[in-house]
Amino acid sequence: MKIHEQRKCMGIDLGGTSIKFGLVSMGGEILKKTKRKTPASKNFEEVLDVIQEEVEGILRFQGLGKNELQGIGIGIPGVVNAKGEVVFANNLFWKTKPLKKALEKRLGIPVKVGNDASMAGFGEYHFGSMKNTKNSLLLTLGTGLGAGVIINGEVFHGSHYLGTEIGHMIIGDNFYNCNCGNNGCLETFASATAMVKFTNRLLDAGETSSLKALRLTQEKPLTPQQILTAAKKKDPVGLQALERFTYFLGVGLANLINIFDPEVIALGGGLSESGDLFLQELRSITKTMTYVKGDNPTKIEIADLKNDAGILGSAMFVAKD
Amino acid sequence: MKIHEQRKCMGIDLGGTSIKFGLVSMGGEILKKTKRKTPASKNFEEVLDVIQEEVEGILRFQGLGKNELQGIGIGIPGVVNAKGEVVFANNLFWKTKPLKKALEKRLGIPVKVGNDASMAGFGEYHFGSMKNTKNSLLLTLGTGLGAGVIINGEVFHGSHYLGTEIGHMIIGDNFYNCNCGNNGCLETFASATAMVKFTNRLLDAGETSSLKALRLTQEKPLTPQQILTAAKKKDPVGLQALERFTYFLGVGLANLINIFDPEVIALGGGLSESGDLFLQELRSITKTMTYVKGDNPTKIEIADLKNDAGILGSAMFVAKD
Repeated sequence: MKIHEQRKCMGIDLGGTSIKFGLVSMGGEILKKTKRKTPASKNFEEVLDVIQEEVEGILRFQGLGKNELQGIGIGIPGVVNAKGEVVFANNLFWKTKPLKKALEKRLGIPVKVGNDASMAGFGEYHFGSMKNTKNSLLLTLGTGLGAGVIINGEVFHGSHYLGTEIGHMIIGDNFYNCNCGNNGCLETFASATAMVKFTNRLLDAGETSSLKALRLTQEKPLTPQQILTAAKKKDPVGLQALERFTYFLGVGLANLINIFDPEVIALGGGLSESGDLFLQELRSITKTMTYVKGDNPTKIEIADLKNDAGILGSAMFVAKD
Repeated sequence: MKIHEQRKCMGIDLGGTSIKFGLVSMGGEILKKTKRKTPASKNFEEVLDVIQEEVEGILRFQGLGKNELQGIGIGIPGVVNAKGEVVFANNLFWKTKPLKKALEKRLGIPVKVGNDASMAGFGEYHFGSMKNTKNSLLLTLGTGLGAGVIINGEVFHGSHYLGTEIGHMIIGDNFYNCNCGNNGCLETFASATAMVKFTNRLLDAGETSSLKALRLTQEKPLTPQQILTAAKKKDPVGLQALERFTYFLGVGLANLINIFDPEVIALGGGLSESGDLFLQELRSITKTMTYVKGDNPTKIEIADLKNDAGILGSAMFVAKD
């Protein structure tokens, strides 16, 4: 757990569309930040090629030797095990890929692999909205709902690296099933996907809305941003979609407070950028549903670090090894 | 965290009907065990009188001085804060009672107070079904559903001692509200109370069952044991009640596995004694609902220590201070 102040780490945020790289000082300064496209094939070796090329390029550009890098932390959108293998990552079509081992072999630098939301949570814990806490959670509200859980100042994974799948906490009955096969997962109520599906359902049922014409005239499906913009203009369908999202996210937050009793629950991901539309209502719903009434010390906040959270968290994850 | 092997601790399990006392060696041997009735008034000072009398009596009987007792651990059926105050304990009609301070003043022995299910979980962790784990959970299936959560070998309370209220995790819609004011809490599906309420509902709706006559002829309400006995004899209402309990407990366990990924989830409390009726089905339901399929390393077991879990856990809780 010793951190060499003079050393640097590389944090990598590996996503389905892009790979973000950051050379990070132990104080949390991003000394160099770059971004590459994820190869369309998602082929494991091709992704490794891109990562190797970019890491070596950054080091060269910065005039750094490999031995001056303490390690490389990588957050991936999926389940990782203790050996640094990707158990599965649906967006990348990966199953059982030895990411740590393969990269260490190519680069000769220590590599540590974690779940992307866990890494973002660790970033917020060190430098953002969850700073100075002991127990805190980050929820990433995007296509799905990811979570990073910090317990006693450490990334919590569970005993077999299979924990913190909070998007798959069952909280009720829903009109469609989750990709995981179950019905009622939190992320089928409180994610961008959920918001779009619910809106389409209301429009299909003939409800009056400006979104109906929009959906007809544009070629692409409705986006959560369009729905939220409609809600802001008091469009009845937009408002219903926003209300439903907020209510069920509140149920999820109350469950998490009843379970973890953290200092902070931070909200990140694309939908959190519209926090001004729902944060006040969300806090109020969560408060009424929390078991211990009156005293609700858990703060619900919008996350600070946006797209840098993953890079910073991954870098700190390998730094603290 | 130093444990003096030669020292002894007292573990107390304070319930709404009885108070159990145990003089415990650091190896987990219960050297002396007694039980007193909880004063009917539940008056705080009267309860303290009983505890003081019994602790002093046990010490006298064992020829021990107060300084030979490392401390007293107490588990209470309610919410405790970091100062050892009972925030509330509904069965005792207590609110904001300085249990630690008042007992330490009376006895001159260090006192540590915890939630009863947390204490029972710590007992199972040291000497029972959760031994040799790092992360594990005990659920107590009684009138309500309590939980003790062990993370990294320590009792997890959350940041403000308000966590692990797993009985109040909302998992669906129910036909009656929880005492806490919400609808859909796990304990309204998977507890003795839930089982009796659901059975009465089926009987009221006119379903055929041997339990109907039983309910009419006996003066007391149906008990979960009677319902489970009926289920064992294939009574259709008994079977439905058992099925519902098992299904929703499975939903709860899958949620907990997705969140905590523990080595063991142990089931204690009165209903766990009928584990042979539902354990196999419960494991199978839980498995299908767990997010990461195929590999389900969490063991679901019946707890070992029965009524001694609370005494042993409370004693270890104060021993490890």
